[in-house]
Amino acid sequence: MSTYTVDLNCDMGESFGAWNMGNDGELLQYISSSNIACGLHAGDPATMKKTVRQALKHNVAIGAHPGLPDLSGFGRREMAVSGEEVYDMVVYQLGALSAFAKSEGAKLHHLKPHGAMYNMAATNPSLAEAIAEAIYKVAPELILYGLAGSEMIRAGAKIGIRTANEVFADRTYQQDGTLTPRRSPNALITDQNEAVQQVVRMVKESKVQSQQGKEVTIQADTICIHGDGAHALDFARKIKEVFTTEGIQVKAL
Amino acid sequence: MSTYTVDLNCDMGESFGAWNMGNDGELLQYISSSNIACGLHAGDPATMKKTVRQALKHNVAIGAHPGLPDLSGFGRREMAVSGEEVYDMVVYQLGALSAFAKSEGAKLHHLKPHGAMYNMAATNPSLAEAIAEAIYKVAPELILYGLAGSEMIRAGAKIGIRTANEVFADRTYQQDGTLTPRRSPNALITDQNEAVQQVVRMVKESKVQSQQGKEVTIQADTICIHGDGAHALDFARKIKEVFTTEGIQVKAL
Amino acid sequence: MSTYTVDLNCDMGESFGAWNMGNDGELLQYISSSNIACGLHAGDPATMKKTVRQALKHNVAIGAHPGLPDLSGFGRREMAVSGEEVYDMVVYQLGALSAFAKSEGAKLHHLKPHGAMYNMAATNPSLAEAIAEAIYKVAPELILYGLAGSEMIRAGAKIGIRTANEVFADRTYQQDGTLTPRRSPNALITDQNEAVQQVVRMVKESKVQSQQGKEVTIQADTICIHGDGAHALDFARKIKEVFTTEGIQVKAL
Amino acid sequence: MSTYTVDLNCDMGESFGAWNMGNDGELLQYISSSNIACGLHAGDPATMKKTVRQALKHNVAIGAHPGLPDLSGFGRREMAVSGEEVYDMVVYQLGALSAFAKSEGAKLHHLKPHGAMYNMAATNPSLAEAIAEAIYKVAPELILYGLAGSEMIRAGAKIGIRTANEVFADRTYQQDGTLTPRRSPNALITDQNEAVQQVVRMVKESKVQSQQGKEVTIQADTICIHGDGAHALDFARKIKEVFTTEGIQVKAL
Repeated sequence: MSTYTVDLNCDMGESFGAWNMGNDGELLQYISSSNIACGLHAGDPATMKKTVRQALKHNVAIGAHPGLPDLSGFGRREMAVSGEEVYDMVVYQLGALSAFAKSEGAKLHHLKPHGAMYNMAATNPSLAEAIAEAIYKVAPELILYGLAGSEMIRAGAKIGIRTANEVFADRTYQQDGTLTPRRSPNALITDQNEAVQQVVRMVKESKVQSQQGKEVTIQADTICIHGDGAHALDFARKIKEVFTTEGIQVKAL
Repeated sequence: MSTYTVDLNCDMGESFGAWNMGNDGELLQYISSSNIACGLHAGDPATMKKTVRQALKHNVAIGAHPGLPDLSGFGRREMAVSGEEVYDMVVYQLGALSAFAKSEGAKLHHLKPHGAMYNMAATNPSLAEAIAEAIYKVAPELILYGLAGSEMIRAGAKIGIRTANEVFADRTYQQDGTLTPRRSPNALITDQNEAVQQVVRMVKESKVQSQQGKEVTIQADTICIHGDGAHALDFARKIKEVFTTEGIQVKAL
Repeated sequence: MSTYTVDLNCDMGESFGAWNMGNDGELLQYISSSNIACGLHAGDPATMKKTVRQALKHNVAIGAHPGLPDLSGFGRREMAVSGEEVYDMVVYQLGALSAFAKSEGAKLHHLKPHGAMYNMAATNPSLAEAIAEAIYKVAPELILYGLAGSEMIRAGAKIGIRTANEVFADRTYQQDGTLTPRRSPNALITDQNEAVQQVVRMVKESKVQSQQGKEVTIQADTICIHGDGAHALDFARKIKEVFTTEGIQVKAL
Repeated sequence: MSTYTVDLNCDMGESFGAWNMGNDGELLQYISSSNIACGLHAGDPATMKKTVRQALKHNVAIGAHPGLPDLSGFGRREMAVSGEEVYDMVVYQLGALSAFAKSEGAKLHHLKPHGAMYNMAATNPSLAEAIAEAIYKVAPELILYGLAGSEMIRAGAKIGIRTANEVFADRTYQQDGTLTPRRSPNALITDQNEAVQQVVRMVKESKVQSQQGKEVTIQADTICIHGDGAHALDFARKIKEVFTTEGIQVKAL
């Protein structure tokens, strides 16, 4: 029996000081890669250390999750930053998390930009190249997680680092393979079964049904699970269950 | 002719965003070690990169200069932080600067805590040990710069990393070898010649005249030059000049 | 039948950006005064507006709750700040909240310092006077909530503003009327009934049993309810219930 | 002899903590209105108090200068903020400065948004209306300073507050009365005489020569002087001098 393999990633360590966010301890049971916030949009040194330890304990791959310097906006507001500014931010945050990995005897595995930085870099070549260059200069062995088929994937290939095409279970797609913008009415898939089926098909057939009705080819190296919703844990459990039935193995790249 | 050797260090990269501080480019001509701010009390990713480049260009050793998370107080206000909190802060900041060193093809040489973190760790064993442990876990090859004879020096020796005893040109000393507290009337030496003579004697004879009138033995591995005063540059030039006459070579450890 | 009256206050609006804290909407049903965070230790402009609106809706008195500029430490770490620095911080935060009160058609009623600022000002006359002066200069009609019998109460009286002596339901007291320090083993009263009985006695008889065994006289103008514990809501309900039986009316000063 | 009157405004109080910016004490001699930073893009409580005192001493009108929450970017990077977010930010910052005005016995006179907030609100009606509404709700007596003929001027008129059309001495204009974008080669007028002549004409004739060669009608109620350039002081002196010769009186609105 042939089997399929895919990575399941989730944002982690997004608490800050006295404020808790997410359910990291529970979610780590279901995923293969963690994207750990690095202090600029969320996370703080104590949280970073704790999250690296938790990921190690669950044998989950550790990735840096750098964001824009916008704590009050959780890194979700686009900012008019230059490529050089993004490069500097990523080097800084990647270095900070690397130190916690080193001090805990772990190795970083990947880097995935957060929120608005991720969205902007998906379509802006100069920001995408800045992120890829930061990885290349600081830790060229890391894998850049970026939106499937986006500028990030292209920028990683161009500079010569490994990349992973990321797909979303609970987001719908457009004819050109991009995500339906969040402000559109059908941007989100709220039915869990539907979301799981979309993912299974992306993994097994490299296809997704677009909002325009046609099938689109998409490469699914890693699947993003959202950790902060009310049903995050339920969904993680569900996806893991169906994957077992479908012969899909969850494993870091 | 026998010669003496001593390190001359200065805080660097303490600008922040649109705000400039210090005269890094000029001062780098006179010193052998730079302590580069890491973003919590001062410094930002862009400034860190720029300062690492400047230090490299002037062949000056690069050190991390972590501080308390107090931007509006420039890390100068003591805070009731635990050893674990300080450990986390130092790992974070050391990692961030390491990444800029790596991306620029440089190697970190030392770490010197900033302001209130430095002062608290000089007398508080648990904070001193937290700093030493952070270095040990992340970059055990680095030298810990700490107040001569202080808890930092002891903590570094205890965990097994190299340390450098730091002395101050423009501060007076007490009978027990500690600095006269800043709030005391005679804390500062304002006369440049006097300051230079004190340093020359500390380097050549390992002695300093205390405020109580007696000589105190002190080890001077590295001398701190302040970079933010009006006469910082003048003083750096002066000290370099006198050192040449006195056969004292300025060189990183 | 004679009745007693006391104020029940609770910290509110301590969420920040994407991070939620506390259960403000529920707790507002039980209290008479809210202390709203002002952005330096917690709270942000959006949260401040929302919390003012909630307090208005529940007819709960609105107070400013200024803290130290320490977001990652939630204003709980003591900092070596001068009286002038505290004065400036309080003016700033009081002004910011006043604007939301004004824009929502409300009036500020009191000011209670947060966390480490509260604790330091309880025993440090110069910090206590700085806080009282800030109120006096910006909004002299406000009531300063401070630890019963502390330097804050004295400072308020001295400059001529109204004060409220605050007592704690879940903390034990020393022979001199101060709180047992948190690090002591018996600092906290974990049994709800015991906590409620202590408060009832403080309100009705102005007396509290000290840890040393003797009774201490204490003035209870306002009682602090903690809003961030797991049982905060339970306890608020309980205290309200017992107060009804005991003929104690909950009402802002 | 008929005389003309115009307001000369300058950004002030943009230091932060240990970092100094600008030359406020000197510039206050030449201007009639100060725009004081409120802590989110620059400024801090101590600086706000000090700057209010300086403005009072020089009899210069005091205005709030709120910005985006982007300290490391000095509020100059556009951010994807909603009208409600901007409203909240402006209420917060306006309140904070109001408290310092009150505590120093002064009255606020105007509000001028800073940097990216100013630029975005000049063309975005929903942001412009958010700013106007914040003023209307908190201090409706204030004058909104906005780019001449921009959405801010319209929004102020719409809600019923006073507005002042702002012009720039050292920027060139387009045929439609907007500023030439900074990234364009001819955006800035570097020749002081040319800049002064442009301003004199805008004040006396309400006309400016556009980059496209035609004259454009423009209302000049207040002129912005930049305080952070190397020649800021020179230019302020020069403009004041020429205005005297030309019979133009500098006076707050």
